[in-house]
Amino acid sequence: MLKFSVHHKDGTARTGTLSTAHGEIQTPVFMPVGTAGTVKGMMPESVKATGAQIILGNTYHLMLRPGAERVAKLGGLHKFMNWPGPILTDSGGFQVMSLSKLRKITEKGVTFQSHLDGATVELTPERSIEIQHLLDATITMMFDECTPFPATHEEAKASMELSMRWGERSKKAFQSREGYGIFGIVQGSTYRDLREASANALKGTGFDGYAIGGLAVGEGQELMFSTLDYTTPCLPEDRPRYLMGVGTPLDIIGAVKRGVDMFDCVIPTRAGRNARGYTTGGEVNLRNARHAEDTRPLQEGCACPACADFSRAYLHHLFKAEEMLGPMLLTWHNLQFYQDLMRIIRAAIAEKNLAACEEAFRACWDEGDIPEL
Amino acid sequence: MLKFSVHHKDGTARTGTLSTAHGEIQTPVFMPVGTAGTVKGMMPESVKATGAQIILGNTYHLMLRPGAERVAKLGGLHKFMNWPGPILTDSGGFQVMSLSKLRKITEKGVTFQSHLDGATVELTPERSIEIQHLLDATITMMFDECTPFPATHEEAKASMELSMRWGERSKKAFQSREGYGIFGIVQGSTYRDLREASANALKGTGFDGYAIGGLAVGEGQELMFSTLDYTTPCLPEDRPRYLMGVGTPLDIIGAVKRGVDMFDCVIPTRAGRNARGYTTGGEVNLRNARHAEDTRPLQEGCACPACADFSRAYLHHLFKAEEMLGPMLLTWHNLQFYQDLMRIIRAAIAEKNLAACEEAFRACWDEGDIPEL
Repeated sequence: MLKFSVHHKDGTARTGTLSTAHGEIQTPVFMPVGTAGTVKGMMPESVKATGAQIILGNTYHLMLRPGAERVAKLGGLHKFMNWPGPILTDSGGFQVMSLSKLRKITEKGVTFQSHLDGATVELTPERSIEIQHLLDATITMMFDECTPFPATHEEAKASMELSMRWGERSKKAFQSREGYGIFGIVQGSTYRDLREASANALKGTGFDGYAIGGLAVGEGQELMFSTLDYTTPCLPEDRPRYLMGVGTPLDIIGAVKRGVDMFDCVIPTRAGRNARGYTTGGEVNLRNARHAEDTRPLQEGCACPACADFSRAYLHHLFKAEEMLGPMLLTWHNLQFYQDLMRIIRAAIAEKNLAACEEAFRACWDEGDIPEL
Repeated sequence: MLKFSVHHKDGTARTGTLSTAHGEIQTPVFMPVGTAGTVKGMMPESVKATGAQIILGNTYHLMLRPGAERVAKLGGLHKFMNWPGPILTDSGGFQVMSLSKLRKITEKGVTFQSHLDGATVELTPERSIEIQHLLDATITMMFDECTPFPATHEEAKASMELSMRWGERSKKAFQSREGYGIFGIVQGSTYRDLREASANALKGTGFDGYAIGGLAVGEGQELMFSTLDYTTPCLPEDRPRYLMGVGTPLDIIGAVKRGVDMFDCVIPTRAGRNARGYTTGGEVNLRNARHAEDTRPLQEGCACPACADFSRAYLHHLFKAEEMLGPMLLTWHNLQFYQDLMRIIRAAIAEKNLAACEEAFRACWDEGDIPEL
């Protein structure tokens, strides 16, 4: 059971507080991804210092290594990775599709080969929920099939209906406790009738929050937004909504406008490891030679150490020399940028000013035409 | 000009304070290596948090990338890498020998091919000193030829005498300033008459400190110690002595006993990146499966975050999963271990207790027979 209070509304956008056993979360919130029990290249206190309130863990990765029973034996994921705050774990469904080979999907669940050692592994709704319980996830995700994109209506319908049955089994397997919760996942590809049917099925089962899955899989921002336009109105007002795997800053602002409260994405961390820094002026590739003698910080006014303590010239040098500190600093910066973005969004909603905030941001940061700074 | 005061003596070992333009250094001191303008995997404030008082930079690496003139333009190495404390730069001689190809040594200097792009580069005593000046090194090293090991007496003599002439030219090229200094480097391989002649030649030229070079190149601990036994007595009592590129904890204790004040070595950082952690009970390989469920810290009582916040099981997991945080944490721990070692050594000298300290350490940490913990 998770308590969720909505504080301010600006159109469909809202701010709120999600109260959990591991702390309160101010929404809209961005959750950094800590796939294998670590946000890559970051000390946990550094993740916290950026303003992160909750992080993600991955059932698929952790069940294969070090193993869910082992994490439980070691005191749970919070203790293991020294992150006492809230943790949301995905159910493994998405990674089974994207990372493993030789998958076999039946009504019971999925059998697949581990991408690590080729071992045959079975994942069912019951086992996924058990793993997330062993990890001590604050927020557990129902086990679903991530519908490939594109999919015909028939394929999307069959896939969604299977996920809905798995959702019921997930809910049944979940051990309800105060401050812990389980989220349902809306599927149905980009078909309105399927999304509506999926949302209704989940509401019938009853979850602590509702995720929107199967987006950010190549359909593009326009189709993603139009899907949200008819999907979020089908979800309960008094429960948090989570758009999985999204996205760029303008994806996030657009989804918040459409009523989404929670986000996760590897973009800031992955881009950081690859020398791409986020600024209010656009994306900056620090490998570019034009930074070699640039004494300016990556982002003027940013509180992260990459900007407070170093020049663009130094960051450029670190990436040219393939020094670990380059990915470390730029990951930190990008996470800071995303957390600052969420703070700005929350403040704008409180002031009923989100549209102006979006316009201001879009004016200097249009992803369709990012200047190479 | 650098001020050096000796405080305590225990036999030939001594504690002292070296005062520089960038801060005071308590000796004996261990200097972490920041080859290319960064101690690999560490934020500068984390390096400082371990107790590091001075770090190394490498002339060879920095002259090739990003270039000494560029570093000067960007405000010097201290500002560039955000390390306001003292920095010692080596002269490039050692790396020319160990890293570059197609070297040609003449009286004038060394011509070599860059290991980065194959470009032909010339390094002379005058250019080496100029580069170190451009980097704004607190302590500049004279340019020398690192005599290969083993070398015949004839080879070692010719090489040492060339280095002594380069030392004179280095001293002449060095711009003396308050709080900055230049160190000479004793060469002569493992030949007593050559080491004595080298020390005398350097004393004649006059330096702010005296390094012992050409050791830790494969001669073994016994031969290194016996070389120190007759070399350090030839060096001025009132000037700091620096044993270059050394070493393991027992190398360091043994050299301190023989009158050495300063050390640098890649061992703690390189070992850390390779899952090898230093403890008072010996070296620990964190990749070993026996750590998989070990809830103990790597080193009981250690203040570093690897030990304070995480278990051996978690460190093991990070290395198995090839997560950046593994090398980050273990580098931090090993640097902490080395700085703690130096603190213990300084305290033991002050109490005239170094022999007992060495025995206690050797009893649980004999490098000839390190238990795989």
